[in-house]
This record gives sequence, structure tokens and C-alpha cells, in this order.
Amino acid sequence: MAASASASCRSPLVWFFSLAAALFFASWYLLLDSAAAPAVLDARRQDLRSVSPATKCDPDKALLRVYMYDLPLEFHFGLLDWKPGTGDGGGLWPDLLRHGVPEYPGGLNLQHSIEYWLTLDLLASEQGAPTPCNAVRVRDPARADVVFVPFFSSLSVNRHSKVVPPARTSEDHALQRRLIEFLAAQPEWRRSGGRDHVVLAHHPNGMFDARYKLWPCVFVLCDFGRYPHSVANIDKDVIAPYLHMVDNFFNDSAGYNDRPTLLYFQGAIYRKDGGFIRQELYYLLKDEKDVHFSFGSVAGNGIEQSTRGMRASKFCLNIAGDTPSSNRLFDSIVSHCVPIIISDEIELPFEDVLDYSKFCIIVRGADAVKKGFLINLIKGISQEEWTRMWNKLKEVERHFEYQYPSQHDDAVQMIWKTIARKVPSIRLKINRLRRFSRFEANKTNETPARS
Amino acid sequence: MAASASASCRSPLVWFFSLAAALFFASWYLLLDSAAAPAVLDARRQDLRSVSPATKCDPDKALLRVYMYDLPLEFHFGLLDWKPGTGDGGGLWPDLLRHGVPEYPGGLNLQHSIEYWLTLDLLASEQGAPTPCNAVRVRDPARADVVFVPFFSSLSVNRHSKVVPPARTSEDHALQRRLIEFLAAQPEWRRSGGRDHVVLAHHPNGMFDARYKLWPCVFVLCDFGRYPHSVANIDKDVIAPYLHMVDNFFNDSAGYNDRPTLLYFQGAIYRKDGGFIRQELYYLLKDEKDVHFSFGSVAGNGIEQSTRGMRASKFCLNIAGDTPSSNRLFDSIVSHCVPIIISDEIELPFEDVLDYSKFCIIVRGADAVKKGFLINLIKGISQEEWTRMWNKLKEVERHFEYQYPSQHDDAVQMIWKTIARKVPSIRLKINRLRRFSRFEANKTNETPARS
Repeated sequence: MAASASASCRSPLVWFFSLAAALFFASWYLLLDSAAAPAVLDARRQDLRSVSPATKCDPDKALLRVYMYDLPLEFHFGLLDWKPGTGDGGGLWPDLLRHGVPEYPGGLNLQHSIEYWLTLDLLASEQGAPTPCNAVRVRDPARADVVFVPFFSSLSVNRHSKVVPPARTSEDHALQRRLIEFLAAQPEWRRSGGRDHVVLAHHPNGMFDARYKLWPCVFVLCDFGRYPHSVANIDKDVIAPYLHMVDNFFNDSAGYNDRPTLLYFQGAIYRKDGGFIRQELYYLLKDEKDVHFSFGSVAGNGIEQSTRGMRASKFCLNIAGDTPSSNRLFDSIVSHCVPIIISDEIELPFEDVLDYSKFCIIVRGADAVKKGFLINLIKGISQEEWTRMWNKLKEVERHFEYQYPSQHDDAVQMIWKTIARKVPSIRLKINRLRRFSRFEANKTNETPARS
Repeated sequence: MAASASASCRSPLVWFFSLAAALFFASWYLLLDSAAAPAVLDARRQDLRSVSPATKCDPDKALLRVYMYDLPLEFHFGLLDWKPGTGDGGGLWPDLLRHGVPEYPGGLNLQHSIEYWLTLDLLASEQGAPTPCNAVRVRDPARADVVFVPFFSSLSVNRHSKVVPPARTSEDHALQRRLIEFLAAQPEWRRSGGRDHVVLAHHPNGMFDARYKLWPCVFVLCDFGRYPHSVANIDKDVIAPYLHMVDNFFNDSAGYNDRPTLLYFQGAIYRKDGGFIRQELYYLLKDEKDVHFSFGSVAGNGIEQSTRGMRASKFCLNIAGDTPSSNRLFDSIVSHCVPIIISDEIELPFEDVLDYSKFCIIVRGADAVKKGFLINLIKGISQEEWTRMWNKLKEVERHFEYQYPSQHDDAVQMIWKTIARKVPSIRLKINRLRRFSRFEANKTNETPARS
């Protein structure tokens, strides 16, 4: 206060030079400091030259203006055991330029980590960290196209789904309840009934209770397997890829003749839901020449085995297991092993801009279990046609990449763009809701019921 | 051939000057010729200065690339008794710059004339006639976002819905049948199952038979009153305004105190469908001070009476009649008489970009028939609030204007933009259809069944 009072006595010229000097030193400080930031995620960093320079994004030029709730720490980075350092203003969000990014737990946790990458990109848009600036955080809800709910629900399932006595419900359940209470109290929720809210629930069991309260929102999901149509559907919601578990196959020159295995599958044969086709296919294919069935999960040593196996195969089999989707499809894509998807109704990410028939072979379940059908189909695909699909896989794989900093048209940006394409239908729903907002005899305020 | 052979011997310089001279004279010729074209639709021409100059539109810059079938004359301008003149290349479409636009029948026919205005704008985009170039005709279907079916179905209903013996069906019915046969034979239809086809059926009885065959398409309709949800719905289709029957109220300075009538209604009291609320409201309101109920249609002398009545009223009542929608709403809007819409489920044009609660009052039917509810609601609206809505009406009325040449953000452009916003969901449907296009045991080619 005292400093600002004395500053107000200075002449405009002095002010101008002070400001210029301050900006000059601040920019150098940021530059040096960001270079020294821990490169937590270097493995997923690619060519940074294509990313916008580290200036704050201009909301007026954004494809999507996003208002993000300042949810308490326990809903997001607190779940990573992250604690704010000095200079992390407010103590709620990491300062990406000064301190780098908090680390997300590894292993299979990562496959549903979209919550982390989307939140980081949104923070970057405001902090002047690198981002393509498609989605930009705004502080005024009235300027926003959508409202982002930064609850790391997948991590909450993975870490806190067990009931620990004396508690009678899991911490994941308790967090969901507190989230519903939080949202019910927000004017933004009350205004739209949640229709413009983006809620992340990529883990099939994420938001297990809350989904039935938050249904008007835009969910970002891996599939609709465990959702009734009224709660989630392709018109309203967004399907996002899994983060792949095998490594990228950079500079892949392993073409048709360098891949000795015709068809590769790794996974459990017996699954609790919907996996009966796996068994049937196993018995149909196990004695075929150049077909490789390998059992066990991709976790642990399985990753190396899968990486080698997929890179040595022309085609990789994807069959519905516990859930309609799995990270196996995205492992196949980054291994440039042409996916054979056995499914009648699978949801595929970004299918409004991607024609999967150009790089996948999709076969109905009923066809796949016909004797000879699948193997004849695969053998009927010429080297020329396979090579076209292989090249297409190398072209599209970037759309399935999660990374920080996010790059043009990677998975993070593809998700933002998909949400942006939903904005007109979100606006339509909200405008219809507003029709009666003032002139109704019995006003019903649609808020998530507290459980 | 001979001329071109001799021309090829000329020097490049001579060529350059010849070309420049030719272009100079051609441009003057076009300028004079277009100025001399019959000004058929001058009444609907507004300020042409805001329209793009008369050069052909660039498809690469278009919001929507449109492939239009060269349907036989009987489906479109033939229904206007238009015959091609000399120079109307191919004899199928009018040459707008040389011969102006064919005239559409007047009177109530005009209210559903969207087919005419959209087709004219598409022709303009290719012929270099004035247009904002949002939708641009392309000749290569592979470049197109959507396929436009230029059947003037509203005019077909209005002119040919009677059965004339010895024929056993109406000419409208026969035209629909021939359209289905035409579409079934097109590779564009077969490729998408019609999902990217834009079909115009603004008259509630238009396409009465064909709608059940063409359901995968994008319909442009006035409402969904006579359509089952599976055939037409707000996710898939486009609601377009009626062309208003009363004249525009240019330079309207008739504010709150210049409009003595509080509430105005013109229309039949008894309607065959859904009109019971009209009677109830009539008995509720007929003795209220400053409320005017006037009977009879807007056609004939009614137009002048309506024009005067609406311009002298603060609020204009819109109640569902035969159909959920009517031109009365758009008459109210261009008269800047704040519409009171009594409806639970009316479909409003362009509601994904327009918040109707800013310039309309929408009341549920059950509320409207409560004694005193409506009149108290209207009386409770302050002069200040009414004036805000009146000003908003003057701002939005341009979105409900059909005209040639089309202007930025008029009804024609708003329809194109609405269709453009549907393109991602159309692409999603087509990509899903393609999933199995090659690898299915029993291919089912979805074509409109011939009736």
C-alpha cells in the first residue's frame, strides 16, 4: 500500500521507463527460470518448435473459452500428493513456468490421465506456458463457452475406491458427494443446469455415483459401456483416447515384409463382461500360421513384450473385453500395426473428423466368429493396401498423443476441438432452458440433487 | 477450333493486351446487363453495398461447400412456369446476371418459399451474382460438405396436391416418387445413405410421402409437427423461419407510448388441431382493456389490417394453430411487436445462436390459461424492459429476412450457417457408416426404397 501510494506521485515518463525495465527483467527471469524447470515429461515432449511462443493466449482468438472452477486441492493436484511451492499463487494450481509440472503416478494409472493433460494445458493458456491456445482459460464466466470441472476422477478411483473403516463409504465416493455439493452452489451450474459443464470421467468407474446427478453436462469418457443412454451419448459427450502404454515407434521403417507376424493379440482370454468372442476367436485362430496369441496384461514386463510383438506384426487384434474400449487400440496405432477391431458398436475418438476405415479394419462380432471369415479377410488385403493403412497410421498417430506441453492436433487439442464443435448444441439447450426462465408459474431450478 | 489454332500463333504480348481488353469490355457488359435485369424482387432488396462484389465465390473460403444435383426442370424452376432463355446454359438454371430471377408465385405461397431463396443464392455463388459466399456450389461431389436437393416441394404441394383424373395420384405425389427414384440411382446418395443430403420441406405437407424414405437426410422445415421423431428432429434437421407476410417496418420510431394496443391477436379462433388454447384465451382476454382480438387470415385485405394492428401494439400473441409454427411470429418480429408465444415445445429458428428470451415472451400453455396469469404478466413488464425487447427485435429482424440477393446474416445465410454447424455430426454418421463398408459379410446398401 505504501509503495503504491508513493508511486502515484511519479511522473508519467518515469512510470514508462520503470515499467519497460520491469518487463525486460521479468521476461529474462521467466526465460531462464523455465529453462531450468524440471523436465518431468520429456519422454512425451516432441518437437517444441511448432508450439506457440510462451506468451499468454488471447481469449478473443481462442476456439474455446473455458471458465475453470478453482476447486479445492483435494479434487485435483492434491490427489497427486502435490503441495504448492512458494510462488504458486493462491496455492491451488502449480506455476508451470517456475516449477514445472507435478508428476502423475505411472503405470496403468496413466491410461486414463486425460484429466491431468487437459488441466495442464488450460493452466498453460493462462500462465504463458507453451500451448497451441485452442482452449483458453478466462476468469469471467460470462465470456466462457464452457465451464471446466477440474476433478481428477480417474485418479480418485484408482487411489481411493476402497472403503477404509471406520469410514462407511470410500474417499472417492465422498469426493464425488462434495463435488456435487460444490456444483449445486455455483451460479454457473444453476444458470445452465450444467449443460455447459465439462466433466472428466475417463476411467469406466470414475464418477460412478455422480454421473447420475451430473448427466446434463458434457462428459469426457473412454466409452459408453457403463452409462445409460440418457446419462451419456455421442450427441452430447466426447470420447477420448486412452494414453497408450507401449512406446512410440519413431522413424518406423518396418514395412510389410519386415513384420513376420500376420496377426497379433495380447490380452486375457477370459473376461468378466462381453469377452466371449475372445474365446471363440482364440479357438478359431490359434492354429493358423503366423498368428500370435499372447496372454496377460500389458502392465509390467508385458509392455516390452507387446512393443516388440506389435512392431513385428502386420495386423493387431482388438476385441471388446471388460469394457468396449481399451488402450490396446491406441498401442496398435502407435506401433503402426493395422488394428482389426471386432465390434458392432465401439465408440472411436474424434470420428467426426477421422475416417477410421482408412487405417483400421472393423468387423462385426457375428462375422468375426464365422469359420474362416477373419483369416480370409486379412489374407485378402494386399501389400499395397496394407502399406496405405500403415502410412495413414503414421499420419494420424499424433492425434492420440497426450503430452505436456500440448502440441497442435494432439489428443489434448483434438478433445478441445471436439468440445468446441459441441458448443452450438450446448447453446441451443441453454437457450431453450432460458425460454421460460422468467415467465413460468412454478420455477424449477435444476440443480444436482445432493446425495 | 480454327480461331484457337490461329490465336496460338500470336506473340505473348498481343495475347496479354487482347485478354486485358476482353476482360475490360466483358466487365462493362456484365455491369450494364445486370443493371438492366428486371428488378423482380426489389421490394426485398435492401442495402446492396454490404454484399460481396459480383465475382465468383472461392469454394476454399466457403463456410459450406455444396454439391447441387442438376435435377430436371420439373422439380424446381419448371414449377414456376419458367422456361430457359437463350444463354441459360444447359437450360436447367436461370442465368441470374443476364436474365434476372424468375418470379415466385405471390400471396401465401411465399411463406414457405425457402426453396427458391436458397437455390438462387447457390446459383449466385457459381455465376458471380451477388452473395455473401457462405455456401458455394462445387461441381465435384468429393469436395462438398453437403449435397443439395433442389426440389421446390412447397410449391409442388401448393400447385399440384390435387388428384386430377384419370391420374390416380397427385402430380405432387408423382414428383416425390420420381425424386426418390432419382436419388436411389445417385452414387452420392448411396455413399452416405443420404445423411449429407439437404432436403427442403418447409410446407408442413411437403414431401408427405418422401419424408419416410429420405429420413437420414437433413430436412429444412418450419416445425416438426407432422414428423415422427425418428424422421425429423432438432439434432439432425434445421428449422427455418417463414417468410413474413406483413411489410417491414423500416425506421420504426413507434415506441411504447406510440402503440396504444397492449395485446394484439389476428387469426382464426377455431382450428382443427391443437387450437383449443385459442378459444380459452379468447374468453379470458376478450373483455380486457386494450386487448385486440381480430379474426380472419392474414391473406388478402388482412395483410394491411395486420400491418396496422401489429405496428400499433406493444405485444402480439402467437398461439399454436393447425401447426406448432406460423408466419404470425415472423410478422410480429418485423413489426417490432414483442411476441408472446404460448407453447410448451415450439421449435424456433436458429435458437443455437439466438436467445429468444431477449425479444420474446414464451409462456407454457398450462400457465397461459390460468385466470389472470397472462394479463398480469404482460402488465408487469415495464416500459424500460419492453423497450429493451423492442430494440432487440430491430436488431434481430434481419435474420428472418429472405431476399435476393441474399445479405450477410439474413435468413438464407443463417440457414447455410446452421447447416454448416451440422457438418461435424453428419461426418460422424458417415464415418460410422463407412466402418463396415468393405468388410461386412452381408452388405446392405441403404437406398431410399422406391414406392
